[in-house]
Amino acid sequence: MPCTDLPLAISLGDPAGVGPEIVTKAWVARTTQRLPAFFAVGDIGSIEAVWRGPLARITDPADAAGVFGDALPIIQVADGRDIRPGHPDMEGARCALDSLEMAVGLTRSGAASALVTGPVSKSQLQAIGFSHPGQTEFIAERCGMAKDNVVMMLAGPTLRVVPITTHVPLSMVADLLSVDLLLAKARVTARSLARNFGIENPRLAFAGFNPHAGEQGMLGHEEERIIAPAIAQLREEGIDATGPFAADAMFHPRARAQYDVAMCLYHDQALIPLKTLHFDDGVNTTLGLPIVRTSPDHGTAFDIAGRGLAEPGAMIAAIRMAASATDCRARHNQPCPAPLTQ
Amino acid sequence: MPCTDLPLAISLGDPAGVGPEIVTKAWVARTTQRLPAFFAVGDIGSIEAVWRGPLARITDPADAAGVFGDALPIIQVADGRDIRPGHPDMEGARCALDSLEMAVGLTRSGAASALVTGPVSKSQLQAIGFSHPGQTEFIAERCGMAKDNVVMMLAGPTLRVVPITTHVPLSMVADLLSVDLLLAKARVTARSLARNFGIENPRLAFAGFNPHAGEQGMLGHEEERIIAPAIAQLREEGIDATGPFAADAMFHPRARAQYDVAMCLYHDQALIPLKTLHFDDGVNTTLGLPIVRTSPDHGTAFDIAGRGLAEPGAMIAAIRMAASATDCRARHNQPCPAPLTQ
Repeated sequence: MPCTDLPLAISLGDPAGVGPEIVTKAWVARTTQRLPAFFAVGDIGSIEAVWRGPLARITDPADAAGVFGDALPIIQVADGRDIRPGHPDMEGARCALDSLEMAVGLTRSGAASALVTGPVSKSQLQAIGFSHPGQTEFIAERCGMAKDNVVMMLAGPTLRVVPITTHVPLSMVADLLSVDLLLAKARVTARSLARNFGIENPRLAFAGFNPHAGEQGMLGHEEERIIAPAIAQLREEGIDATGPFAADAMFHPRARAQYDVAMCLYHDQALIPLKTLHFDDGVNTTLGLPIVRTSPDHGTAFDIAGRGLAEPGAMIAAIRMAASATDCRARHNQPCPAPLTQ
Repeated sequence: MPCTDLPLAISLGDPAGVGPEIVTKAWVARTTQRLPAFFAVGDIGSIEAVWRGPLARITDPADAAGVFGDALPIIQVADGRDIRPGHPDMEGARCALDSLEMAVGLTRSGAASALVTGPVSKSQLQAIGFSHPGQTEFIAERCGMAKDNVVMMLAGPTLRVVPITTHVPLSMVADLLSVDLLLAKARVTARSLARNFGIENPRLAFAGFNPHAGEQGMLGHEEERIIAPAIAQLREEGIDATGPFAADAMFHPRARAQYDVAMCLYHDQALIPLKTLHFDDGVNTTLGLPIVRTSPDHGTAFDIAGRGLAEPGAMIAAIRMAASATDCRARHNQPCPAPLTQ
């Protein structure tokens, strides 16, 4: 079966967070939003705690498409115990991890077209011994990918950003930056924007690290030592890389029109502009994997879980992006899942 | 004469930049924008190079208001030599510095109600031996203020931000942060928002330094060691300080509604969201001075100087803010200029 005809797998994330609620809301909006068939992976109890709509328990993803029109298909993980939305616990964290693992496995094995992951709590996961900084690193490992060859990209309707370093103390970032790291991240980004987003010659704009991009060395040297040499090398390879630009002047509308993705050096440099503009509809996607993976760019929101207040916009955007990336890869004759040697 | 009846002094900035052009455009818009009387300080040749409108050369600021309706009043600095817009040189940098110095002096002496500064080129100024990181530090010194007791605030219609550190390499910021520095900057900010902006109990929201505000110490310790203790101390003093918050979640519309000013730890953390939202109408103002000082939050834009393309929006906003702050200080019975002991 062609990959584009398979359903998407959605892990529900932490059962006490807003994951279950936004997945049901996305299912309710399936027709108006023209969403492709998907199935949930998680604890059925977490959905029943917040929703009275039709559920179809399945065990084989191949059954999802047939029931999707009438009920939300779900592959059950854990025992459907009583879930209290907004009250996370260790058992819920274990369920979130099991759901993620199963959804990754199903996608990796070719039973699902793409993976969408619901929000988890990093501190809850760490409490049960999870050693990765986040879901992205876990998925990369499960797909057999080295960390530097996998890229986190955040995208909203008017901006895409890549944080080249992610969940590390800010004072450590300068020591982590290297020409090789920038090259690895940029190559994956350029290739994936073509394969998953259909942007054939993507324009990568690099932010400077220091104020005013270092102002010719007066305010720091990372630009001269690391960023500019990386850009020069990328241009030799035929990648349309530019910069380094003063980061504060890169994100107003006229500046954003000049590039397809902003390559940022640290977490907040990328996430501040993205969430300033797209707090409610940002999507987190992982580039460089043999599978397509997206996620709504927000957390578990335990404070509003179970109250019917969660906005499904980012989840719907994540589902759409996963489907569109799957189509795009098919048009590029990328196998699904792609072999690791891609 | 009450301070509010005095004209504003505007230094033209670098004569080869867009400063002269945006000041003339602001004068043209004086009626529609209801701007108070102001006079320019700079090289008359820099205006004649870009504008054919009426100029009134004055030597005493007291003459500005009388002629303002019919001509742009200007106090001449330098000799009116031929200026080539977009082609900065050392003589121009000297003129920019002389203009700034005269405009500061006139405001400080009580001849002008407030100071608005046009854009200068930091690298041009450094080439002639200027040893300050920017105009702000020069003005602070001329007003006899210690650096830590002066605050740079950037403001647009929907956001105010204070960068607690400014023009330093990013890797040095962690070492520069201290509880005392945060306290000094926050106290000046709180006092000035009341005096200059009429916000009686301003809400100061502190950003975290690390991703996710350090995530309970997992991603850095500046939050626990420096930011949280400073906030606790400020609250004891009766200042409405909150945080530290994850910086990336502070700048979407619902978050911005929760505070009056975002206290940021480094240049780009403050300037990225401000310029993302208000690239064309951001104002830079210096708090804690005995005078009111504002500036359009953009540079010399040498690349478009002399082509009639420069947008005067930020200069107009800077003039308005200077006038409104002057009025507000008068209502708060602040002398003008205020004594240094304020």
